[in-house]
Amino acid sequence: MDSTAEDGGYQAWSEVTPDAARRLLVAAVDAFAERGYHATTTRDIAGRAGMSPAALYIHYKTKEELLHRISRIGHDKALEILESAADGPGDAAARLDRAVRSFVRWHAAHHTTARVVQYELDALGPEHRAEIVALRRRSGAAVQRIIAEGVAAGRFAVPDVPGTTLAVLSLCIDVARWFNVDGPRTPDEVGALYADLVLRMVGAQK
Amino acid sequence: MDSTAEDGGYQAWSEVTPDAARRLLVAAVDAFAERGYHATTTRDIAGRAGMSPAALYIHYKTKEELLHRISRIGHDKALEILESAADGPGDAAARLDRAVRSFVRWHAAHHTTARVVQYELDALGPEHRAEIVALRRRSGAAVQRIIAEGVAAGRFAVPDVPGTTLAVLSLCIDVARWFNVDGPRTPDEVGALYADLVLRMVGAQK
Repeated sequence: MDSTAEDGGYQAWSEVTPDAARRLLVAAVDAFAERGYHATTTRDIAGRAGMSPAALYIHYKTKEELLHRISRIGHDKALEILESAADGPGDAAARLDRAVRSFVRWHAAHHTTARVVQYELDALGPEHRAEIVALRRRSGAAVQRIIAEGVAAGRFAVPDVPGTTLAVLSLCIDVARWFNVDGPRTPDEVGALYADLVLRMVGAQK
Repeated sequence: MDSTAEDGGYQAWSEVTPDAARRLLVAAVDAFAERGYHATTTRDIAGRAGMSPAALYIHYKTKEELLHRISRIGHDKALEILESAADGPGDAAARLDRAVRSFVRWHAAHHTTARVVQYELDALGPEHRAEIVALRRRSGAAVQRIIAEGVAAGRFAVPDVPGTTLAVLSLCIDVARWFNVDGPRTPDEVGALYADLVLRMVGAQK
């Protein structure tokens, strides 16, 4: 269960209060990851959290509200990671390196949460989905900005900037699918490997 | 619905006979993709195929048997694509280019099937899962063989061959998650973009 893992000072779900609301969110992540959103009931989630369905209802009116909260927190974190790298110090190569390392580490360390966040988008209601799509656009724009600046400075050679941005994000996101805590690589090691591969993808001059 | 799309002469599910068994498989892919494996019943699948639950039972004893059949066909096709590229003509760069193009095209053109194949592995029974994991290892080995040959011939510069193999496969597989038939790129265009990016990842000499 990665729901309580730490990542660079980020204590998962610490933004969710009170404690009962946080326990329900952690239970929902685990249930959605294990059985899928549509096969999970609010009763299942309450049971996993050791609470009654009535107690759940105090904090979340619907199952979709739980999914939205999870998705929102995950996407806010992704955006924060990518914008802070894009706006940080250093040249485009240093910023792209930092963006990829942090984004990969997050998807590896929080792979259960990240899978729910990435695979259950279609289960969000239309308004929530539009809100999340807007956050995803901003995340993509942060990465695209770094790559475009590297090209403009003559440091990167990228024939298709939007396509390469899409591929870089996709490569990092898919870490959540295959990452295995019992596997041979730590989140930091995958981050370092991927930062190198992405700098190659953009033809970064050494 | 991509279940009937063609890809390089491959008519989806043409290996499944009789027609009723094929219709049930197509219905299962759509249901699993839309609601998830655990939220889908054999009654749902029979209904989508316009058949009775009793008629389904003639062809498939359990829901897991349907998932296994889908997963097996998808993984057989992936292995065929990657081994035929690995064993094909040309130097390592030409073979890696061909492997990535075909693998990406398949994941784009058959993205609904590919999502089920990739995301529902945990729902397979232990024996079926072991069988599929073995096919996945062989697919990975085919790609790793091309990369290792490129390195041995002094044409690729790859510090971490297993890690880079994993990243290349992951990049291609994740096309199934984000590919949108209404998006700006065709499966062929994504294949060409990704072949170029992968050749950069392995430091291929032009």
